[in-house]
Parts: sequence; C-alpha cells; structure tokens
Amino acid sequence: MALTDIATRTYNHSWRLDPIIRSLLDTDFYKLLMLQMIRSFHPEVQVTFGLINRSKQIRLADVIEEAELRAQLDHARELRFTKKELIWLAGNSFYGKTQMFTPDFIAWLAEFRLPDYELRKVDGQYELTFAGPWTHSMMWEIPALAIVNELRSRQALKTWDRFALDVLYARAKSKLWDKVERLKKLPDLRISDFGTRRRHGHLWQRWCVEALKEGLGPTFTGTSNVLLAMENDLEAIGTNAHELPMVLAALADSDEELKRAPYRVLDEWRQVYGGNLLIVLPDAFGTTAFLDDAPSWLADWTGFRPDSAPPIEAGEQIIAWWKSQGRDPRSKLLIFSDGMDIDSIEEAYRHFHGRVRTGFGWGTNLTNDFVGCSPVGTPDLDPISLVCKVVSANGRPAVKLSDNPNKATGDPAEIARYLRVFGGADRKAKAVRV
Amino acid sequence: MALTDIATRTYNHSWRLDPIIRSLLDTDFYKLLMLQMIRSFHPEVQVTFGLINRSKQIRLADVIEEAELRAQLDHARELRFTKKELIWLAGNSFYGKTQMFTPDFIAWLAEFRLPDYELRKVDGQYELTFAGPWTHSMMWEIPALAIVNELRSRQALKTWDRFALDVLYARAKSKLWDKVERLKKLPDLRISDFGTRRRHGHLWQRWCVEALKEGLGPTFTGTSNVLLAMENDLEAIGTNAHELPMVLAALADSDEELKRAPYRVLDEWRQVYGGNLLIVLPDAFGTTAFLDDAPSWLADWTGFRPDSAPPIEAGEQIIAWWKSQGRDPRSKLLIFSDGMDIDSIEEAYRHFHGRVRTGFGWGTNLTNDFVGCSPVGTPDLDPISLVCKVVSANGRPAVKLSDNPNKATGDPAEIARYLRVFGGADRKAKAVRV
Repeated sequence: MALTDIATRTYNHSWRLDPIIRSLLDTDFYKLLMLQMIRSFHPEVQVTFGLINRSKQIRLADVIEEAELRAQLDHARELRFTKKELIWLAGNSFYGKTQMFTPDFIAWLAEFRLPDYELRKVDGQYELTFAGPWTHSMMWEIPALAIVNELRSRQALKTWDRFALDVLYARAKSKLWDKVERLKKLPDLRISDFGTRRRHGHLWQRWCVEALKEGLGPTFTGTSNVLLAMENDLEAIGTNAHELPMVLAALADSDEELKRAPYRVLDEWRQVYGGNLLIVLPDAFGTTAFLDDAPSWLADWTGFRPDSAPPIEAGEQIIAWWKSQGRDPRSKLLIFSDGMDIDSIEEAYRHFHGRVRTGFGWGTNLTNDFVGCSPVGTPDLDPISLVCKVVSANGRPAVKLSDNPNKATGDPAEIARYLRVFGGADRKAKAVRV
Repeated sequence: MALTDIATRTYNHSWRLDPIIRSLLDTDFYKLLMLQMIRSFHPEVQVTFGLINRSKQIRLADVIEEAELRAQLDHARELRFTKKELIWLAGNSFYGKTQMFTPDFIAWLAEFRLPDYELRKVDGQYELTFAGPWTHSMMWEIPALAIVNELRSRQALKTWDRFALDVLYARAKSKLWDKVERLKKLPDLRISDFGTRRRHGHLWQRWCVEALKEGLGPTFTGTSNVLLAMENDLEAIGTNAHELPMVLAALADSDEELKRAPYRVLDEWRQVYGGNLLIVLPDAFGTTAFLDDAPSWLADWTGFRPDSAPPIEAGEQIIAWWKSQGRDPRSKLLIFSDGMDIDSIEEAYRHFHGRVRTGFGWGTNLTNDFVGCSPVGTPDLDPISLVCKVVSANGRPAVKLSDNPNKATGDPAEIARYLRVFGGADRKAKAVRV
C-alpha cells in the first residue's frame, strides 16, 4: 500500500552528514547586534573564544567522536549568509525599528564566513578554541555550542530503536505542553525562546518554538534564534552579552580603566541602539559593584537582565536602585534568563507582577528538558553546563566574575585582580546545573 | 532541501476514501472460532445483528455523515480474505494447536464476503442492521463497530490543525506508556489487547499493540485482532461471545429448552475446541443462575471470563464454585475483560495473585483512552458504549440479561420471560461507561 519514494530513500542511505548548523542565521540575535557594534568600535581587536564544559564529570571527548565534531564544524565553515537571509535582515524591523542593520553592515555580512578553529583532546575533554578578529571569532559561540550539544544527544540516541525514540519525543512533547498550559494561566506574561545554544537538537528546538507560538500566542514574544524567527514570522529577541564588558575589561590598561569598562560598553551600545534594546546586563563583574558605580544616565534605560544572581533577590536589588534614582519601576523591565524553568518563571512572575514589567528568556529547560522522558532510563540526555566564552583579547586574558562564583571564568590571578577592583560584594555560590 | 514526492502527494490529494477496514482479518479472533462452530452446527440459522448505542446522549446520526458511513461499509463489503491471509490462518498455530481451522472451513472463507446492511436514521441515531445467515451477519460485528467509532473520532478531529493533532497523539502515547510502566511492575501478569471494536482508529490500535509488545515483552500475550496478530507475529487471542447463548436461547422452543441453552452452547463448543479455548462466558443470563445449574463437566474447563459483574465479586463467586466442585482454583484461569483499565487491572491482579491464574483482556481503555490528552478540550474523543448485538434468530427476538441490568438487550416482554426462567439473582446495576 505504502509507496516508497526510492530516490529519497537512496539519498537518505547515502548521507555523508546530517548537518546540525544549516544557516548562519541559526544563531542568537544578540550576536548580530553586538557584531554590528563591534565592527564599528573595535574592528581590529583580536579575540579568542573557547569552549568550557562546567559539567566536568561528562567526558565529552569520550562521548563525541572527533571526526564527527570536525565534520560538523567544517560544514558550518562552508556556510554563507544567503541572499534571502540578508534581504530579510535588511528589510525586517527589529524591536519596532526598521533598518536596524546598516546597508554597509549587510554588505559586509555577505562576505562573512566562520574562521578556523583549533581542536584537541585534553583529559577526556575537547579543547576547542576560535581565534581571529573579534568580528569573526565571536560568531562561533552559538553554532559551536549547538553542535557539541546535539552531537551529544545524537550519540545518546544512536542505539535506540524506533519505538523508544517515539516514546521519548511523545513524552517530551507532552511535558512541554503541560508547561505551556501552566504558562497560559499567567496574564500578560511575556516569554521568549533563548534555547539555541543548549538545544537537544535543531529539529527539537523548532518544535518547541512552534509549540510556544501555537500555544501561547502573543504571550510568546519571540525567539533569540534568528533563523527560527525568520521562518516562523516571529520577533528576533536579544540585546547584548558578557563578551562586551569582558573584552573591554581585558583591554583596559589600568585598574581605573578596568573599573570603567562595563559603563564604556553601555555608552558605546547607546550610540548604536535605543529603545527596548537598552537593556543592562549588570553581572559580568558583580551586580552590586556595578550598581554602586553606575552612571545616572543608566536609570533612563529600559531595563536590566540579571543573569547569575537568584532572580528575586537580583530583581529587588535593581528595583531598589531604580527607586534610589527616582525612577518608577513599573515603567521598567526586568528580563530573567538564567536557567529558568516553569516553577521559577511562575515564582518570579507572581513575585514581581504589577511592580515591574517582566520578561522571561527560556533557554535550556525549554529546548533540552528530557528529564523523565526516556523509556529506557539514561542520564545521557540531561543537559550539561557548556559555555563558549572569551578567553583573551589582543592576547590579554579575559575574566568573568559573575554574581555566582561557580560561573566565574578566567585565570585565577586575573580573577583576584578583578575582585580587588570590583569588590566582589554579594556574590553567592549556587550550583550551576545548566 | 526537502524533496517532495509529487506522485505520492498527488495521490494523497486525490483520495476518494481512507478506508477504516482494509482486511477481513481486521476483526476479533473469537469471531473466526465461533464462525467455524456455527458453520458446523447451525449453518441454516438466520440471524440479525444490530448496532446499539448505549450512550444515548451522543446523537451519532448528527455526528457522522451518512454518506461517509455508507462509503466505509460498502468498502468493507468489497473485501475478501486474501491468499496470504488464508495461508496464515491455515498454517499458523493458535493456542498451541496446529490446524485450528479445517481445510474445508478455510476453503469456505475464500468465498466469504460481508452481507448487505440496512441503514436509516431514527431520532438522531443510526439504525444499522445486518441480516442473513448467522455465518455471515455475525462477521459484521467488529468492522461495523470499528467503522462507527473511527468515523466519530475522525469527525472530532476534522478541524484540528496539524499542531493540536501532534500534541494529542504525543500525550496519548505518553499516557499509554505510563500505564505500560505500571504494568511492568506486576510479575507474571498476562494481558492482551481486546480493543479492536472500540478503537480510536486503526492506526492508533496498531501503535498501542506495538507499544505493548515492545514494552511488556512476553507479559503481553497477544491481541484479539487477527490482522495485528499476523502482522506483528503475536498470538491471536479470544474464545467465544454472548451471541452463542443468545442465539440458541432465542431458538429454544420451550422455557425448559431456554434454560438449557447456555450449556448446550458449551457442549457444542467442546466438541470443536479444547484446552485453553475451554473458557466459559457465564453471564449472558446471569452468572448466579448459570452456576446454580451448571453441569459438573464444566468444572473441567480451563477457566471463566466474567464479563459484566464487578471483577472481584465475580471472581470470588467462580472460585467458590470451583471449590464446591472439588477443583483447585490455582490451576484455573479467570479472564477479566469488562471495561478494564490500569487501576482495575492492578486491583484484580493483586487481589487474585497466587490464588488463581488470571488474564486480562484490555479493550476500550487501551485503544481509545484520550481523556486529558486534548490540547483544545473536547469530550468528542471520549469513547462511547456502542455494541453490535444479536437482535433476532430465525425471526425470534434475542435477549441478553447480563449481570448488569444496564447491559441487558432485547424486547422488555422477552426480558421478563428470561428473568422468570433464569431467576435474575445477584444482578446489580452499575453504570456502563464503555
């Protein structure tokens, strides 16, 4: 009865590679926003990014085959922005603004390709680094993470039969939909997908995004994934990340300049962007230190994205700061995006509802939550805490302190110097699960 | 990237009919066993079967289009047993016995086709009857029920979008698999699929059967669906049904003959079948009456299938009867198949474990349990209590009393006569959900 399409079947069994990254737009939107700014202000800076697996008990080099990893990375390097992708970037409006990207920048993107990488195995882990102009190495962050994470899930599922896979995805879909039904009960909730880097797989992220669009309607404000935003007519979401203060801090020639680096970033940012893109990421070197020295013009910005302190404490701290600056928090925005899941989203939503506008960036626990879904019982599908961070800028070591010492990165001696400069007040260790 | 198989797509959008019944083996195994016996003992009897919708609040004629129903029934009438189906029936062993079906019977099946039907709308319900030789009309029971039930689910789902359907089936799969994981915890459980007649759809029953095979292994003893047994190399399960005592009772010329009819059926049965097929269905006219007058040779039979009394009460009553006959219940078998689901299966299993062998026939709640699975909230997927019963034999009205007055069928005056003859002791009304 069932007619087999022999051509398709033959093509399928001859596959050399099932590519994980199939478009340079399959990245987070903030990378493009930052890239445009970096290209304007810091086109000559050389930056090295490196993969860091904080879940050390998972020996990635034992799990993922090097040849497969190289094949996926090599494939990503062959990609170019396509004509229709660039037309969409140029013609779409982002955050209500048309021509967010200048024609000059779009023309530059047309020539873009990912730079080379260095890969070796050390102690059961992959040492994977990307060196080159900041404008190029920075674009590896998201595809590199997505590749490693998806290769890990693929490996876990390689020996599963058709039926176990069917039950796995049925359960994962059910689990997500149960979350959707809980989220639907929160009036005026604003939530978006931030799950590209840690996704189980690109097809699964696509399903998750479609599920939120279908289930939440306008409550689902968009996705950080530019490709999925384009394909699903969703808003592309995101502003800026730690790499900006980290690089500028690394380039600082004195402790005084180091102390001013986080504000210099924001000063550059406001020269390029406005409105809802004026979101402060305060925790690169500790939120308390950041607020203590923050310039008053920052109080005019739209909001903050606390990213490593506990959401409610961090939110209260920022609200107190707004009040100290004579601002009404009800007109301000807090974006929560650090390991959020349904319980913590509900909790933060209820805590702040009516007192401040909130938005949620839902990442790993949206696009990689298979806990309890396996019919054969394996922990290999649990997400790991994998990041791709700035290691150095113009040869100088880079540091992130974070509000959570477990999320700090960088050379210990440099961390000590940063702690001396920024103080390190109110930093609290909590376990980093994802 | 995705290559569309245009030929398949064109075929799909030109579909005239998506047939529900695609094989005459898509029926319950007991129909074939009964048919062989009926053909030997009662080849001339004329029997009319009729559809009875006990869920009167569901106005089936308003839900299902008459043209669609006719198209499906007409399609089923075009079917013949195929060569490979007959070879399988002839060559397979059933219940450990080779050549269960005689060459003569197999040759007769090769000529078989379903007889005509009569269909009309009365008060929002379909009056659907099948008249003809018992050997032919009886074969409509299962396909007719499967067709009406599936047309009802198809109607409920007609306007759903692709995504809601995806969530629905993901949840239904998850729900079934959660039941599978509970069943796995019951050592030596024996359970089989009895869900053809009330299935949500033929593809869904297929998935359920594959799920039980995959998840339960040898605990899953087989399926009543002959086609699925063949396709999945499973045991075909089933023995006999109420139509046998109902027809023989209807044909009885006196009250005395009526009272003997249930035992006459079993006497004929044992002349054709043996071993594990010697299962008594005691409740057609009340289990208590049946046991009171049961001949002593029945105590040698393998087991009983109580089908309308509460499982534990009925089981205890039968165990007491075995003991009164000097038999050890531990060597006997009780088969539970009346509206069972995970809770009642666990309860009956635990209650009887070690005291009697048990087997479970899992029907409607296996193949049509979508409660809580709909992402859009509709009761139209809840199963209804639809049966296809003997209405008359050789022009005489047929009656079923059952242990549950809510499951009784037949003309009220005749029911009164049967109650006078059989007594009606211990009949207890309970709601009939499915």
